[in-house]
Amino acid sequence: MKKDDCIFCKLANGQIPTNTVYEDEDFRAILDMGPATKGHTLIIPKEHADNLYELPDDTAGKAMKLAKKLGERMVEKLEADGLNIVQNNGETAGQTVMHFHIHVIPRYKDDGQKIGWKPGSPSKEELESLCNKLK
Amino acid sequence: MKKDDCIFCKLANGQIPTNTVYEDEDFRAILDMGPATKGHTLIIPKEHADNLYELPDDTAGKAMKLAKKLGERMVEKLEADGLNIVQNNGETAGQTVMHFHIHVIPRYKDDGQKIGWKPGSPSKEELESLCNKLK
Repeated sequence: MKKDDCIFCKLANGQIPTNTVYEDEDFRAILDMGPATKGHTLIIPKEHADNLYELPDDTAGKAMKLAKKLGERMVEKLEADGLNIVQNNGETAGQTVMHFHIHVIPRYKDDGQKIGWKPGSPSKEELESLCNKLK
Repeated sequence: MKKDDCIFCKLANGQIPTNTVYEDEDFRAILDMGPATKGHTLIIPKEHADNLYELPDDTAGKAMKLAKKLGERMVEKLEADGLNIVQNNGETAGQTVMHFHIHVIPRYKDDGQKIGWKPGSPSKEELESLCNKLK
């Protein structure tokens, strides 16, 4: 299903011109207009899902296989030294467009980006308590 | 195949005690010891692969389906507001252990983390040139 007011539905289904690097029946992969690095690509499913929770399992699996394929191309064709796969869900996590997408970000030495977090140092007891909740 | 000198092979295969939140024949998911947030989990395949490029396609697909399942648990059981999926390949991309893994990071309002990047603003011509290389 497509959502009429969703910009990524329009991009994925070719209603708005894009720099398309890959397309099949399930996905379109396009260059990000505000890229972290040269070649930063978005994998967008053609069917609307707000986020990973709403995405069919099968599409989630295919999306990761496609991320692998595009990552391999980035190493080969753009001579990338590294690769980040990032997928954000919810405003709190930095998702800005509410249509599931995967960022495939080629990395280069001295590209000036740092994608990471400040590590915490929870106690053994805190970790055990969280583990019991999540199990 | 397991690698004798790989710490994540040992963790995934139960040779070192962990806070295991999920296990099946292909994966173990454990709490990160230096977590970004409460419940930050690592999905680790039991078979060794240095990174996404080396991972069998089928395992890549299964890993993303598992990320979805664990993300749903984080929303339900930890009341997470958001979720970041991050998978790093190569030192340049911040990979510190050379055994493929996916970070599943529950997010909470005011958790103090910011996982993102500085957006660039390439010209139309630069984007078209990159697109032609990647196609």
